[in-house]
Amino acid sequence: MIAAADNSRRREIGIARREKTREKLRQAAARVIAELGEQRATIDDFIAAAGVARGTFYNYYKTRQALLDDLWDSTGRDPFQAIQTACAKLADPAERLVAEARLVLREAAEKPAWGWLIYALSVDSLTVNADLLAYPRPDLEMGRRLNRFDYLSLSAATDMVVGTVRSALRATLAAPQRIDYAESIGILLLKALGIGNDEAVELCRRPLPPLNP
Amino acid sequence: MIAAADNSRRREIGIARREKTREKLRQAAARVIAELGEQRATIDDFIAAAGVARGTFYNYYKTRQALLDDLWDSTGRDPFQAIQTACAKLADPAERLVAEARLVLREAAEKPAWGWLIYALSVDSLTVNADLLAYPRPDLEMGRRLNRFDYLSLSAATDMVVGTVRSALRATLAAPQRIDYAESIGILLLKALGIGNDEAVELCRRPLPPLNP
Repeated sequence: MIAAADNSRRREIGIARREKTREKLRQAAARVIAELGEQRATIDDFIAAAGVARGTFYNYYKTRQALLDDLWDSTGRDPFQAIQTACAKLADPAERLVAEARLVLREAAEKPAWGWLIYALSVDSLTVNADLLAYPRPDLEMGRRLNRFDYLSLSAATDMVVGTVRSALRATLAAPQRIDYAESIGILLLKALGIGNDEAVELCRRPLPPLNP
Repeated sequence: MIAAADNSRRREIGIARREKTREKLRQAAARVIAELGEQRATIDDFIAAAGVARGTFYNYYKTRQALLDDLWDSTGRDPFQAIQTACAKLADPAERLVAEARLVLREAAEKPAWGWLIYALSVDSLTVNADLLAYPRPDLEMGRRLNRFDYLSLSAATDMVVGTVRSALRATLAAPQRIDYAESIGILLLKALGIGNDEAVELCRRPLPPLNP
């Protein structure tokens, strides 16, 4: 009985360790894809980024494509979709614009492989998910129509939001950020668009909508 | 006499055409370096990006390194230096911060090879020119000390400025932007940092300091 329990415990540890290595490979792959693009990234790049032996890689995946499939399965083919769906319920374009940014940063801090893929998808050489590059545009337009926002050029405002979120995402993936980092980013965005300081702070401290309700 | 003049004219046209192709190769190389990094970029990548035949490449450069040397000679080894020197004379950190951004966008619009290199140097995987990634930090700190700027987190403010300028630079290199684009970007940056709308507009319309006085 004791031996059987030991075996079962040992098996559990083995499974957990395998899953940990698999996640390490997925994260490394996502990081490499963010740097080189999905087409250019090779098994050698994945191995080097994960810091594992070549044999280890093949212990987990038969081919480069098998790793990529596992990666996309783990994050979903449209990783930004859940955030957009959750935020669609918010009525105010100002609140929605920062809720999306805050959710991207929170999810990236919790799930780096997901974060790196979002980062990769926001490189404009990839054609998938153009939403990600233009995501704030509808909110920016609605915000101006409602006199919530005040800006000269829609493309400048879009580039400001996307560039800031992208740069904040990179910083979040590179190192843990202070607890108020995502909030600070949100406040900067809203103030840039003409929202007063106090209201910007209040909007960026509102509870975030649940991702999978 | 007429034949001699014709020859000389023909030679001039030939030289001008050669210089045009050379500039095309330099611009393509700068763009490729921005995408892949200087280490990874190959002659094949340069040729594909410039849309010239392989023979054409070797007509101009004996080696990959010869093109890179020509590229760096044409832009200067520290392409951001001239802008920093010109803006150092400005006393107000708010004016300086946007003057640097506006100069980067103006120069990139006029000299795409220079613009692509600045873009490449602002990728944080390259260690050269870390200035470019942290350029607004001293102005942001001084601005807060003087109560010109108001922000929660210095790293969030830095990432916002760098991310926005980088994204605006990318947009400027990808397609000609409207005349008020750089100014709009500057106004967004200053408003994010707490400068009122009217003053932000005024600061972004000031004449820019000369680059090589």
